[in-house]
Amino acid sequence: MNALVICSGGLDSVSLAHKVATEQKLIGLLSFDYGQRHKKELGFAAICAKRLAVPHQIVDIRDVGRNLSGSALTDNVDVPDGHYAEDSMRITVVPNRNAIMLAIAFGVAAAKKADAVATAVHGGDHFIYPDCRPAFIDAFQTMQNHALAGYADIRLYAPYVNMSKADIVSEGAKYATPFEATWSCYKGGARHCGRCGTCVERREAFDLAGITDPTDYEDADFWLHAIQTRSA
Amino acid sequence: MNALVICSGGLDSVSLAHKVATEQKLIGLLSFDYGQRHKKELGFAAICAKRLAVPHQIVDIRDVGRNLSGSALTDNVDVPDGHYAEDSMRITVVPNRNAIMLAIAFGVAAAKKADAVATAVHGGDHFIYPDCRPAFIDAFQTMQNHALAGYADIRLYAPYVNMSKADIVSEGAKYATPFEATWSCYKGGARHCGRCGTCVERREAFDLAGITDPTDYEDADFWLHAIQTRSA
Repeated sequence: MNALVICSGGLDSVSLAHKVATEQKLIGLLSFDYGQRHKKELGFAAICAKRLAVPHQIVDIRDVGRNLSGSALTDNVDVPDGHYAEDSMRITVVPNRNAIMLAIAFGVAAAKKADAVATAVHGGDHFIYPDCRPAFIDAFQTMQNHALAGYADIRLYAPYVNMSKADIVSEGAKYATPFEATWSCYKGGARHCGRCGTCVERREAFDLAGITDPTDYEDADFWLHAIQTRSA
Repeated sequence: MNALVICSGGLDSVSLAHKVATEQKLIGLLSFDYGQRHKKELGFAAICAKRLAVPHQIVDIRDVGRNLSGSALTDNVDVPDGHYAEDSMRITVVPNRNAIMLAIAFGVAAAKKADAVATAVHGGDHFIYPDCRPAFIDAFQTMQNHALAGYADIRLYAPYVNMSKADIVSEGAKYATPFEATWSCYKGGARHCGRCGTCVERREAFDLAGITDPTDYEDADFWLHAIQTRSA
């Protein structure tokens, strides 16, 4: 399969790019600039593309982001600290973001005559993001089969959809993903903050996978506090 | 229903806006700038919004258009003359355009707490555009139900999906749509050219509906030649 990988520069999608580059034919990385505040990760997507020697396209959909107000990922609302599981993290939901990015990716894939679009949505996202669930992935594939009937036959490849983030860390290690060259923090500072939902999730995933986390966190111990509070 | 209407400024979507404004609660018009050459029609969408006293949002997705190369609607490829039915019109297909615009519209609708997204896709488009067919509309609704589960419940309203363009002209007349304030021509000149696929389709639709076409065409008679050639 000639696959186009949607790559944000985060741990999940960079791991996916390495997996696809090994198992299939990786034809390029596709990133989206939707006005996210942690734009820093796009630089890590570019580095990944260079490392894997494939083209990197960044699609500018900032004006879409501007029209989807009400989300902390694009607005000037403070990003809450803590674990994803907390209700406060709900404000990081961008309405319909995955559907929008996947639809654009299928258009780009059709233009490039690709056979597959690969996405790193994973099980850990299910409980907050409905557009990361297996039923959504299946429904999206069906929709695309109708949308491109007679023009293109493109598979939506989502190998992590039933995996936890810890599983992805294990998978990423298997394909020699340089985790230090990936970005998760929602706050986008010089170092990973260690306190926001994605930092806590990242740190915990390495712990659960039993793999050393090479990430340089500002607050390297907050995650333990966060997951203890969660389970209390 | 609080409905957001996707409105290009063309005959179909302006007619739809008038229908929705009469039958439901129209909360706004949404247009897309995808780098189309006939941008002139967006001005007619703005005029329609003003006439119906609702907000008009134009979402800039030009960079998406740039990434979907190979289509005459966005590239510097000559737009062919003639009727849609001709194979030559196939080059006006923008891969996945409807899926992309609808996905963005659902995101905007969710942000605005709308109950419905209305689209003017119609039966006349079926034979070339797979993403204008009833099966696509149904699959898109199912996909969105999964994507927004727990966040929003938004209906995809496509009342013209089984209608011909002539039916839309009849419907538009019923809701007092000012057809002269709509734009169809792919060439985007000062007047409708009368020769491109959409001009021919427009002129023929008025004829079939038995309604006087108020459009000012540069070549007002070409359509007869085009449809005779088609049926020959």
